[in-house]
Amino acid sequence: MASVLPRPRVLTALDGAFTLTSETRLAADEPLAAAAHLLRSVVGRATGFALDNAPDASIELRVDDTLAAEGYRLRVSPDAVRIEAATETGALWAVQTLLQLLPAAVHRAAPLPGIRWSIPAVAIEDEPRFAWRGAMLDVARHFLPVREVLRFIDLLALHRLNTLHLHLTDDQGWRIEILRYPRLTEFGSWRPESQVGAGETAGFDGRPHGGFYRQDDIREIVAYAAARGISVVPEIELPGHAQSALAAYPELGVTGESVQTWTEWGINHNVFNVEESTIEFLCHVFDEVVELFPSPFVHVGGDECPKDQWRADPRTQERMRELGVADEHALQSWFISRIGAHLASRGKRLLGWDEILEGGLAEGATVLSWRGWAGAIAAARAGHDVIACPEDTVYLDYRQSDDPAEPIPVATVTTVADVYAFDPVPPELTAEQARHVLGGQANIWTEHADSPRTIDYLAFPRLSALAEALWTTEPRDLAEFESRLPRHLQRLDALGVEYRHADGPRPWQLRPGIPGRPSDRAESAAYVAELTANIAGPH
Amino acid sequence: MASVLPRPRVLTALDGAFTLTSETRLAADEPLAAAAHLLRSVVGRATGFALDNAPDASIELRVDDTLAAEGYRLRVSPDAVRIEAATETGALWAVQTLLQLLPAAVHRAAPLPGIRWSIPAVAIEDEPRFAWRGAMLDVARHFLPVREVLRFIDLLALHRLNTLHLHLTDDQGWRIEILRYPRLTEFGSWRPESQVGAGETAGFDGRPHGGFYRQDDIREIVAYAAARGISVVPEIELPGHAQSALAAYPELGVTGESVQTWTEWGINHNVFNVEESTIEFLCHVFDEVVELFPSPFVHVGGDECPKDQWRADPRTQERMRELGVADEHALQSWFISRIGAHLASRGKRLLGWDEILEGGLAEGATVLSWRGWAGAIAAARAGHDVIACPEDTVYLDYRQSDDPAEPIPVATVTTVADVYAFDPVPPELTAEQARHVLGGQANIWTEHADSPRTIDYLAFPRLSALAEALWTTEPRDLAEFESRLPRHLQRLDALGVEYRHADGPRPWQLRPGIPGRPSDRAESAAYVAELTANIAGPH
Repeated sequence: MASVLPRPRVLTALDGAFTLTSETRLAADEPLAAAAHLLRSVVGRATGFALDNAPDASIELRVDDTLAAEGYRLRVSPDAVRIEAATETGALWAVQTLLQLLPAAVHRAAPLPGIRWSIPAVAIEDEPRFAWRGAMLDVARHFLPVREVLRFIDLLALHRLNTLHLHLTDDQGWRIEILRYPRLTEFGSWRPESQVGAGETAGFDGRPHGGFYRQDDIREIVAYAAARGISVVPEIELPGHAQSALAAYPELGVTGESVQTWTEWGINHNVFNVEESTIEFLCHVFDEVVELFPSPFVHVGGDECPKDQWRADPRTQERMRELGVADEHALQSWFISRIGAHLASRGKRLLGWDEILEGGLAEGATVLSWRGWAGAIAAARAGHDVIACPEDTVYLDYRQSDDPAEPIPVATVTTVADVYAFDPVPPELTAEQARHVLGGQANIWTEHADSPRTIDYLAFPRLSALAEALWTTEPRDLAEFESRLPRHLQRLDALGVEYRHADGPRPWQLRPGIPGRPSDRAESAAYVAELTANIAGPH
Repeated sequence: MASVLPRPRVLTALDGAFTLTSETRLAADEPLAAAAHLLRSVVGRATGFALDNAPDASIELRVDDTLAAEGYRLRVSPDAVRIEAATETGALWAVQTLLQLLPAAVHRAAPLPGIRWSIPAVAIEDEPRFAWRGAMLDVARHFLPVREVLRFIDLLALHRLNTLHLHLTDDQGWRIEILRYPRLTEFGSWRPESQVGAGETAGFDGRPHGGFYRQDDIREIVAYAAARGISVVPEIELPGHAQSALAAYPELGVTGESVQTWTEWGINHNVFNVEESTIEFLCHVFDEVVELFPSPFVHVGGDECPKDQWRADPRTQERMRELGVADEHALQSWFISRIGAHLASRGKRLLGWDEILEGGLAEGATVLSWRGWAGAIAAARAGHDVIACPEDTVYLDYRQSDDPAEPIPVATVTTVADVYAFDPVPPELTAEQARHVLGGQANIWTEHADSPRTIDYLAFPRLSALAEALWTTEPRDLAEFESRLPRHLQRLDALGVEYRHADGPRPWQLRPGIPGRPSDRAESAAYVAELTANIAGPH
């Protein structure tokens, strides 16, 4: 039977099947044109059938205003396919579900011979539990060409995930063209070499790495995603994770010393200074960013900003006195608030990692809670919106098994089952507070993923499990999920996704001799609790 | 003005322009449906316009049987666009030319804002000089995921190149699933590490590499190419360049000893033995290959097969006596002929590198002449068909300048101008003999290209120059070509092609410290002359 993934809310199998042929026609209400276009384009590529427009079509996409924003109804009978949705987005998810009812070869780019394009008759009523169902892609540590970002968007859409968070800048690379400051990409978009592996014994590859997105590339990514129901959220890191910017403009740093884009992984001590000119610089950067990304949210980072340079720098200490801030945490909060106010003036909402709670949360800020649940709980209790992405559950760079042969095994074991069990709402919240949890996302950090093929291995099928965890309202049933997974993996095969097989890495997915830094769940939890002690309020 | 590349035979600029809008309609004669589909799909993606079918459409694709097989006529006036072609292929090239008349953003995957989709009025009459205009992609030395092969096909189509030669097997990897012999991919599709760089001082990366195409992947590639007018020619290497097969089935080798897929670059001494069981094995392999590839040509390699194992092996020497062949060259010729006869029984034509001339050319064989021109001249004089791909002109792995900073600089300098000057017909041939030259191709060997991004650097814009060299009948005019190149590079930018810029590699395209093996043109020519002395007949 139909192995739709994520599992729809209500799916009733009916008798018979609808068969797509070159004679099949399609009609769509105007507001659902993008969904009709996507269906035509995917089916056209894989089958050669044009699904021409016709008033008496057997496939119909119709508006039903009574449905939820992302909800849809899909009814397949032997004679007809009918999709109903209130919005284009709902209709796009209906199209993805419909495609999953077809043979997996519908996801190929050209027709395979001998396939009968039949769709089992079915009645589906569906809508997601959360409005924010996302994945973060770290294109800063390793650059991904535009085409790979577009393909990742296709893979998000397949899973009815609706948010792509692009981590565009970090110590190791600045990936977005800023017209006003061309040195950001001229100097910040590449590094002379990269660390390979994690921990004390990690080496370097001696090979330059780089690349960046032109503004037209960004426009293409954003438009491509929008046509598939996906919002792209940009992240520009501050006040830490800034070394690639400092490589381009050393005057933005605390020391003013010349640095190069960082070649190591970890937490870097070179951070932005707190001069008005630096705030102004960053506001100019955000002015270009907000023009490119229609997303209401703009992510400013805020994580892992060491305070030692600020503490040691007389000018910064003087500035703190001028500003009347009590300590470096308050200074960070001031920094974030200045950017937040600027973003608000541009009609945008500030999003930041949970460290932005330290020293006081900026007005209207939304928190991405990654260090366990402390940030989510504190922010939701304070009436701020929250997106859950706890590192111990949905960090897809973490090792997938306790086999030491996992390629560059870092952090704690995070299996498909662990991700599948993810629930973005911590039990500590009241129902009222829980309404501030917009949803969740997985984060794909790429220190140890230097190619799109490695990202495939890290992301799938764990991202498939995440998609279901964020979509469904049902209690989790791992066995039932796993019964649908084999059919879903056929879709991933058709799309050329080099996912991790349940029995472990293929020989060419191994990284023998490259050190990871595995950790233990209990130790890791204790460390995170210590780190977040300053943001966790009374329970 | 229009910077169409390759340059059409006749292009006359007219007054005014046609503008594509959401109201534009398209009509096509049934035999040209694939061209209409391609135009709709590319334009639909980039503009959002559906180009719906309508009898009174302003864009028409019509059959004109009087035109040449790959020829077309394209007339753009302010009111209408009319394409005429005798075949689907001709119409596909007309579509590519039409796309080049549009803003470069037509090659993007989603609409950019603010673009006016106008096409300058023009009258074009066009057809190619050669029927074989190709590129070889070495997916054996470094595997390329399906999506990257499809993208390369898009890039060939953009340039109206019509042949993709896939080098599917070599010592370092076996990339095609053969159902009867699963060990070929289980053991032959990966290697534990790879040599990095060339020459005596090259090291190894310690990193496994692998991957292969399932038969459905091959079907997808072939169908995708066909829908764009491109034929895919498979190459299965024999009797040398066989180590990945021997890693899977050691009994196919001369020594029978167990080997692993090779990790080095160069000429390997482990070759197939000449037993009937080995011929039979290979025939079974080709039986699966010919089912997957509709191309009339099947490439059997034949190059760089050292004869030392055959010479040293008593069983092979005995076999030579049984077969009545005079020497190891004749034995190779016998081997190739056996495979050739089998391919002929399956309705296919054998294609091989020019070494297949040694010891006598198999009946009906077509020669890919790579070691200079000796093979092309000898074969054409003997009445065999020839495809020219002289290494000193169209090997795109060769260094692009004499700057020692070229990434892993190997062999002789081969500039855009060198490739542009390429003429597949050597002056030594009479007009009658010259008719045996089917065309030419560039070869992209990937020993030193371990990622698609590196292939971009090697291939473009040299492949753009090749496309023009194979299409045009005009005397070469480098300055005129270069005047069209900047507009063409905008198309490549829109497609995300990381071509080599005229001023040299970007910092992240460098490979500092990795040794190449540059050579000098005169020395290299002398070496090739010596190598081919045994096939060059009297001039």
